[in-house]
Amino acid sequence: MQGPVEPAFLLVRPQMGENVGAAARAMWNFGLSRMRLVDPRDGWPNPRAVAMASGAGRVLDAAQVFPDLAGAAGDCTYVYATTARPRDLTKTVFSPEAAARDMVRRIGEGERVAVMFGPERAGLENEDVAQANAIITVDVNPEFPSLNLAQCVLLVAYEWRRATHETPALQEVMAGTQKASVLEVDHLARHFEERLEEAGFFFPDHKAESMKLSLRNLWSRMPLTGQDVQTLHGMLRQMVRWARKRPE
Amino acid sequence: MQGPVEPAFLLVRPQMGENVGAAARAMWNFGLSRMRLVDPRDGWPNPRAVAMASGAGRVLDAAQVFPDLAGAAGDCTYVYATTARPRDLTKTVFSPEAAARDMVRRIGEGERVAVMFGPERAGLENEDVAQANAIITVDVNPEFPSLNLAQCVLLVAYEWRRATHETPALQEVMAGTQKASVLEVDHLARHFEERLEEAGFFFPDHKAESMKLSLRNLWSRMPLTGQDVQTLHGMLRQMVRWARKRPE
Repeated sequence: MQGPVEPAFLLVRPQMGENVGAAARAMWNFGLSRMRLVDPRDGWPNPRAVAMASGAGRVLDAAQVFPDLAGAAGDCTYVYATTARPRDLTKTVFSPEAAARDMVRRIGEGERVAVMFGPERAGLENEDVAQANAIITVDVNPEFPSLNLAQCVLLVAYEWRRATHETPALQEVMAGTQKASVLEVDHLARHFEERLEEAGFFFPDHKAESMKLSLRNLWSRMPLTGQDVQTLHGMLRQMVRWARKRPE
Repeated sequence: MQGPVEPAFLLVRPQMGENVGAAARAMWNFGLSRMRLVDPRDGWPNPRAVAMASGAGRVLDAAQVFPDLAGAAGDCTYVYATTARPRDLTKTVFSPEAAARDMVRRIGEGERVAVMFGPERAGLENEDVAQANAIITVDVNPEFPSLNLAQCVLLVAYEWRRATHETPALQEVMAGTQKASVLEVDHLARHFEERLEEAGFFFPDHKAESMKLSLRNLWSRMPLTGQDVQTLHGMLRQMVRWARKRPE
């Protein structure tokens, strides 16, 4: 049987409704919507969760509530427990990135996976962690390791999206124009060189050649668009027009 | 001149003190502490920021305040602007991961870098973004792209730590014990086979061989530690003791 195409996020004994709402937002920011709640302290539904989730209410609407962890994770074949501190348990520990890749692989093979997040104050109990198949730990500043619930949800959800959506690490956004061609840049360089010559810019004579070379290099070094080149031609033409209008 | 070894995070016109405090926590979670504030709406210092930052107060104590962006970024040689939506500006766009790697490289070459984060409600103005050298955009769910200020700070700080700290993607935590050797597992398999034989487990006879093979395979498939092996031997010995004590 093919399972769901994304992990369930299990919030174990969450305390404040606001944090459940913030976790729902963090999930939905990265396209995840399968939330399960284990014994939420303030009951369910929770109006404070709804108020905080604004825009991600659909995650809360679809959330399932269970009295205990065994019920919430009962249909899953692989469960990750998020923990901040090391536990005295023999277990595989994943970084969030490696865990996300592992989830993608398992889900692709038809497994049903879940990620457990502990209550705000103290995190998961050892008894909870012992029920998981593996651990996810975020490498944080050892002087200040306290990630809150929604932050932890955000980082795992972020890595899930990174593992499932190929997006370019770097792109050049051209705002409706193309990069200038070598020919366009060459015309621009000549235009400036000619008018600057006329304006007496290349002075003294014995430095003129090296000044021209530097200027050539400056144009080539800039990541100019076709539009930039037109703008620079226009600026120069206007300066020339202005210069020629001045009384002799 | 060698610059600072980490980027400055510039919060541009932040509105609520709570969010400045949450941003300070997110930075310090990943070891970053150079915060600069541009024209914070509610003035500075801000008691609500201090209350929210608990544990990361040192980031706020060291924060510098500037009346405008030019002042805050004035000493930097490369500035990234975080934006959620595309802008009509020709500019390089980095993922947070690629941006962090780019920061590491630039800082290694002596550059002074900064990351700009916009106000909570609407993000950076186009005028702010035009002053940056490049853009950082987080790939989010297009149906719900609203990351809040502290979340955006958290993700960039997380990627900074990933780019600067090599941590294993996956590790096996052994809780004071070693993986069992093949010999240990073989002894365990024989022990169980012998006692189960005695108990009449391998029945009927014509299935005994395949049952033994399956059981062998089960032990080999388990990621057993030396301690696990001892525990299983002990369980079996006790079952045998109990069985032999029973009245014939």
